[in-house]
Amino acid sequence: MELVVGGGIVGLSIAWRLSRAGRPVTVVDPAPASGASHAAAGMLAPVSEVAYTEEPLLRLGVASLRRWPSFAAELAEDAGLPPGVLAPSRPPGPFGGARPVPSSPSRSGPVPSSPARSGPVPSYGLDFRADGTLDVAFGADDLAALDELAGFMDKLGLPVERLTGRECRRLEPMLAPSVRGGLLAPGDAWVDPRRVTAALLAALERLGVPVVRARVSELLRAPGGPGDGSGRGPAVVGVRLDSPAGGGDLPSEIRADGVILAAGAWSGELYDLPIRPVKGQIMRLRSPEPLLGRCVRGMVHGAPVYLVPRGDGELVVGATQEEMGFDTRVTAGGVYELLRDARELVPGVTELEVAEVVAGLRPGTPDNLPLIGPAGVPGLTLATGHHRGGVLLAPLTTAILLGEEPESAALCSPARHQPAPGAHDRPSGPYDGNSGSEEMG
Amino acid sequence: MELVVGGGIVGLSIAWRLSRAGRPVTVVDPAPASGASHAAAGMLAPVSEVAYTEEPLLRLGVASLRRWPSFAAELAEDAGLPPGVLAPSRPPGPFGGARPVPSSPSRSGPVPSSPARSGPVPSYGLDFRADGTLDVAFGADDLAALDELAGFMDKLGLPVERLTGRECRRLEPMLAPSVRGGLLAPGDAWVDPRRVTAALLAALERLGVPVVRARVSELLRAPGGPGDGSGRGPAVVGVRLDSPAGGGDLPSEIRADGVILAAGAWSGELYDLPIRPVKGQIMRLRSPEPLLGRCVRGMVHGAPVYLVPRGDGELVVGATQEEMGFDTRVTAGGVYELLRDARELVPGVTELEVAEVVAGLRPGTPDNLPLIGPAGVPGLTLATGHHRGGVLLAPLTTAILLGEEPESAALCSPARHQPAPGAHDRPSGPYDGNSGSEEMG
Repeated sequence: MELVVGGGIVGLSIAWRLSRAGRPVTVVDPAPASGASHAAAGMLAPVSEVAYTEEPLLRLGVASLRRWPSFAAELAEDAGLPPGVLAPSRPPGPFGGARPVPSSPSRSGPVPSSPARSGPVPSYGLDFRADGTLDVAFGADDLAALDELAGFMDKLGLPVERLTGRECRRLEPMLAPSVRGGLLAPGDAWVDPRRVTAALLAALERLGVPVVRARVSELLRAPGGPGDGSGRGPAVVGVRLDSPAGGGDLPSEIRADGVILAAGAWSGELYDLPIRPVKGQIMRLRSPEPLLGRCVRGMVHGAPVYLVPRGDGELVVGATQEEMGFDTRVTAGGVYELLRDARELVPGVTELEVAEVVAGLRPGTPDNLPLIGPAGVPGLTLATGHHRGGVLLAPLTTAILLGEEPESAALCSPARHQPAPGAHDRPSGPYDGNSGSEEMG
Repeated sequence: MELVVGGGIVGLSIAWRLSRAGRPVTVVDPAPASGASHAAAGMLAPVSEVAYTEEPLLRLGVASLRRWPSFAAELAEDAGLPPGVLAPSRPPGPFGGARPVPSSPSRSGPVPSSPARSGPVPSYGLDFRADGTLDVAFGADDLAALDELAGFMDKLGLPVERLTGRECRRLEPMLAPSVRGGLLAPGDAWVDPRRVTAALLAALERLGVPVVRARVSELLRAPGGPGDGSGRGPAVVGVRLDSPAGGGDLPSEIRADGVILAAGAWSGELYDLPIRPVKGQIMRLRSPEPLLGRCVRGMVHGAPVYLVPRGDGELVVGATQEEMGFDTRVTAGGVYELLRDARELVPGVTELEVAEVVAGLRPGTPDNLPLIGPAGVPGLTLATGHHRGGVLLAPLTTAILLGEEPESAALCSPARHQPAPGAHDRPSGPYDGNSGSEEMG
């Protein structure tokens, strides 16, 4: 049996895909679906979410975005969700070439859309939408940055459309008058992460995958194990659980043939990893009718802010990035900055009701790339360090572990952060549930 | 039996004082202590809360503030609260004359204090504190306004101290460096309104006063009653209740010898009154240690903002004033303004945790004065229209109804808003529970 430590979107996705592939698996998490996945906005926007220097991360995002529609469809099926179809917020228009200009000033008029879509978008009951992301610019610096980004996307063959301020406001009439230009990434999508984790838990239940509600206190090592010569200790053979407060019938440990560490920002508490918590505060506003048709992003006061519309009229405003350790307080300063910046992008947000503010902790890594693959100690595989990309990268992460994405696997190999002691310096291979089992005691 | 419609701080206070005076009384409210009293900050600050043109309101506030210490002490006793004593946040210093200047730059040094206090302040378990309010000014206009206000207070014989910016920061080191001057009203106090309403409910229970959890749908009139010639209808003889959703054993009506309408912003729904809801959004921040020693107020961007410290480290930031009808949504714009303005006063608030944001509806009147006394129809007495002053004015309101404050009663007489049809144009007299009973059917 393989044990996934962590019940966020990454851990639950892995358990689901492994179980689907016929492999016995168990998940352990004190409160599944309550961490960063609960706070996340759910932008599936590799183009917009990335600094241009981060081409590897961009490639990962594009590869994972490509997997999202089938991931969502299969998940909805396994979770027993009704085949939800979300009507497009506006009638789909023809794809108008390299730099299509929307011709109608009306809010319901034709808009540029990606060639891949026409007609209603299936939402799979997950509020999955693919209406693109609009990056907007206010000043000359921002405009120049958008031009540069557009050129970069073009070079990579990614669909992108450069828009004037007026064109931006035709697409999104609620945008601030001060918006001077924009960049539409028509292929970008988004999803409601809370619906995704709920669907994953439902799918796991239907597949008979146990989800143990307990906190892992430490990794179990093979007694007297020889180690692997890397100095990272003997083989991992399971986990020890915190003794439950109320007694209960929980075991004190769970033994497994392989442990997959998907504990997000807490991963470094269980194994020596260059993972740090990056706090994000995010706000949910409630709108009687949708204020936006798609995700809108912009740089305001030097910080990125984004607005993600949900099918139910919610508008998610995110997110702060704070190096505060394991601090999940919602602060006056965080809320203030989110509202200040959202107002700059879309002044009309002030009228909306505040439904919720939450803080989550992203698992940050030194190079902003996740750690996916063999940890460098027998019996332990990593699937963590997704930082701001956990929701986007969940499908790709499962594919890497199943050996379906060798190129991405190489980019995410944990070996890049390890002192290279020979054998474990290899690039990540497919996760077979027995990595290093020959060394287990 | 007298029936109080409304279980906010005003209605509950009246019921308590009437019962204490030996008169049978009942309260009816669908959710006592959940309206404006729940949202209120609890400043007992007649001097600071008033525009200088509002001398009548100021006089009411001063009269009620004078009653607060004994009101709080007796309430604590009747509610069975332990005789809580709150240590002063800083060691009390000597009162230094007409315009004392604090001489110590340290945070724990002596501060100007009112002559009435030295040593620990009794909090009566209500978080009642009397460390004064500091009004601060940023610009030349604000400073001039403070000078004018100081002169006005002086003329009225109210204690007030004019401070420089530096003196303000000596008193409250967390104040923004841009504060250029201030006005200390050393006699101002504050209290936790939620503790007060909880204590009132406890006191009523101990006194055996029924609190009926139901919504009043209308006032019951004497059938075929002659009216009083004012066109305001026949005598009020009780109330009709909304039929409870879950069945229950509630009666469909409650008959009473007199009805006291203390339904706050909803009072106008039951009787023709010039009452409108004035929405206020307020925020509670959580501080590991107190950021302020007293209430701080200032004008920021043309709007007043205040910060009220609680004994448990909470800092209340208030409050918006919005004419939005019966809308109690917490909005992005309201939260934004509160945080923006609070930051201007005390930049350090950004570090605090956001504990709660709530919205309440104040009962506004055309002249900002409450309506207390005979309504002008037999059997009905008003105790409403307290606008922003419900907490401050609760003790005075009960005193007016018990005939103890004829001068204040004249200022609050509902007759001032009525077409004068003779008999009911008289100033308010003491409430005897039988107002106009000779005319009842």
